Amino acid sequence: MHSVTCVTRRMQYDSPDCGPALRRIRSQAPFVYGLTNYVAATLSANVLLAAGAAPAIGAAPGWPAAFGAQAGGLWVNAAGLINATMQDMLAAIDAANAAGVPWVLDPVAMGAGAAEYDDIIRTMAARRPAVIRGNASEIMALAGGAASARGVETTASIAQAVPPGQALARRLGAIVAISGPEDHVLSPDGQQVIIPGGHRWLTTVTGAGCALGGLIAAGLAVTPLPGEQLTMVAAVHALYARAAEKAAGAAQGPASFATGFVDALAQLQGMAGD
Amino acid sequence: MHSVTCVTRRMQYDSPDCGPALRRIRSQAPFVYGLTNYVAATLSANVLLAAGAAPAIGAAPGWPAAFGAQAGGLWVNAAGLINATMQDMLAAIDAANAAGVPWVLDPVAMGAGAAEYDDIIRTMAARRPAVIRGNASEIMALAGGAASARGVETTASIAQAVPPGQALARRLGAIVAISGPEDHVLSPDGQQVIIPGGHRWLTTVTGAGCALGGLIAAGLAVTPLPGEQLTMVAAVHALYARAAEKAAGAAQGPASFATGFVDALAQLQGMAGD
Amino acid sequence: MHSVTCVTRRMQYDSPDCGPALRRIRSQAPFVYGLTNYVAATLSANVLLAAGAAPAIGAAPGWPAAFGAQAGGLWVNAAGLINATMQDMLAAIDAANAAGVPWVLDPVAMGAGAAEYDDIIRTMAARRPAVIRGNASEIMALAGGAASARGVETTASIAQAVPPGQALARRLGAIVAISGPEDHVLSPDGQQVIIPGGHRWLTTVTGAGCALGGLIAAGLAVTPLPGEQLTMVAAVHALYARAAEKAAGAAQGPASFATGFVDALAQLQGMAGD
Repeated sequence: MHSVTCVTRRMQYDSPDCGPALRRIRSQAPFVYGLTNYVAATLSANVLLAAGAAPAIGAAPGWPAAFGAQAGGLWVNAAGLINATMQDMLAAIDAANAAGVPWVLDPVAMGAGAAEYDDIIRTMAARRPAVIRGNASEIMALAGGAASARGVETTASIAQAVPPGQALARRLGAIVAISGPEDHVLSPDGQQVIIPGGHRWLTTVTGAGCALGGLIAAGLAVTPLPGEQLTMVAAVHALYARAAEKAAGAAQGPASFATGFVDALAQLQGMAGD
Repeated sequence: MHSVTCVTRRMQYDSPDCGPALRRIRSQAPFVYGLTNYVAATLSANVLLAAGAAPAIGAAPGWPAAFGAQAGGLWVNAAGLINATMQDMLAAIDAANAAGVPWVLDPVAMGAGAAEYDDIIRTMAARRPAVIRGNASEIMALAGGAASARGVETTASIAQAVPPGQALARRLGAIVAISGPEDHVLSPDGQQVIIPGGHRWLTTVTGAGCALGGLIAAGLAVTPLPGEQLTMVAAVHALYARAAEKAAGAAQGPASFATGFVDALAQLQGMAGD
Repeated sequence: MHSVTCVTRRMQYDSPDCGPALRRIRSQAPFVYGLTNYVAATLSANVLLAAGAAPAIGAAPGWPAAFGAQAGGLWVNAAGLINATMQDMLAAIDAANAAGVPWVLDPVAMGAGAAEYDDIIRTMAARRPAVIRGNASEIMALAGGAASARGVETTASIAQAVPPGQALARRLGAIVAISGPEDHVLSPDGQQVIIPGGHRWLTTVTGAGCALGGLIAAGLAVTPLPGEQLTMVAAVHALYARAAEKAAGAAQGPASFATGFVDALAQLQGMAGD
């Protein structure tokens, strides 16, 4: 079984299978529902709108059950527990699962030292997310390795996180996406897609990683065939990396970079500005 | 009674009655209190500051009753239920009503399929808002028509929403403002003001509609005569439309559009930059 | 005792003791934990990232106790009570105190008329904050003077606030920082540092004052000697003032000012953009 893990490919925005995947987001404009934290929520919504999706965020009374079922995709950012309850999150997850809606789990700050919080993430991870997206420390902690995060920051490298990430993918039957200098997207059956590029300034924009989780959910919403999810998840990472590169060229600092990044997402996704 | 509805006029930023109304916001700098959602809260505060008002947002202990009564105007965005309780909202509304403070209701995502949530909006709508502001789907749902929204997005047209919006205005004695390609502002006695212009990129900036609700509350705060509220609500829409047009000319995408939009609001409202 | 208060100096970004203090933030990249409000949270995180610190924000289950103890510095913004409980805040404060982590209290909207809210701030202020940062009205209200705020806005002048601020510093053994056209930083032993400059557009960017509280916590995190805290707190204000001046020169309005301000913070702190 381990021999399967040698199936590795690289993807960039210009790769042939990237564009068709991303165009489905723009043309189908999926409704995507998110439970995320208030630090990242505004950027996440704007990233989704720029890419062509239709987001709604938050756990107003009745929303988790209704929107979890109606959405094309759901993303659950564990740090959303700063403004929603575990019950809200489980209600949205269960509604999504019952309706066949794919969902993304982002285990923000997993392994940073808050045991009660980590337990809630484990409870959610056991409910069949289609994709788990995090940084190296978070993926390692969720895979059962040593906790090493510092708040929401990683203290581990991608290289350290790939083997436990592959084990986690196999165990949960989920795609595992690890963000870093090069992103690694791992499938349960041992495939690996590496996405180079991007820009380190993404790490200076709060919520950029969280917003990526939302964008993955938008991708899943327009990918009915499970066998095509790996390509879609990688394509979304490639879009992110290219937009970051475009933005970095003209930026004066992290705030103008963030503005340019969202603009670049919209440009790459074909939103005309007339 | 229905024959009254033929009183229709158009307003733009350059219309003679628009400027004097808007200048009162800048010169009086009203304290405006808002209960809104964390996705839109930052933009809403910045929009109000750019226009010359003094906002405070959120339901800290004691704030709804104190600030609801002290404010010049209050806005209640139903999606604020993602970070406040119905009790908080009713406390602010009741305090505002007792003190004679006009308030704005924004029925975000009304009719999108969450019955418990919709019921809370109906409870609030029955407490005499001065203005109800929403998109076509939301106004139709609140007026009792078929639910048709998709999350926070409209799936209906302005043309469909105007007749039920007029009925809603008459029934509740409130001004009803419907946002769309052309905004329609409807009074309880059958007047209608149409505001053309604006830019579709406003729909790609999360919270832009929510922030408009706050700006309407700022306008009401400096409009003591009820008979002048219709003009003020229309003037605020005209300011929004013009700022969007100015911003669209120089924008590279939705994020630089958002920056330019807030800058344009400040410029149009006479905030000097020296 | 009062004669000590004549020890006054002025500090600007170019002052000899400013640069070395600020460089410690960049070189040590302290983990800073914040309980703040959702209106200001995104800007606060981005300001801290631009300055070189590593922020985490919010009260997810288990975070206040764990992160309050692990952080290099903690900031508690009272308006964070719109999205966290008093218990969350006291848990973070107590954990910080037990671990010797310095913390900053920002008494937002103190004295604006919500008695229950003001009482919670007094309860927190009695737990030995290292620094209290606010505007003139807030500091006067916390010092026991007449309440005079209007929501989150000051209605008092710096000159009015300095004497009660000095008394507050002595009584609580805390540094008291008052933001205004010229910032005043007051030590418990009667020293005063005045920071001139800045730009009034900072008051048109929601959360700019709140974010300053976070940046002070980052400064404290890299200042182990209590005797050097006064200089660090003043240096952080001087950085803020210089960044505002840089941003104002190129801004078209408050939103482009905010973008330029965060960019300028990063530039002044030596973040290269390659």
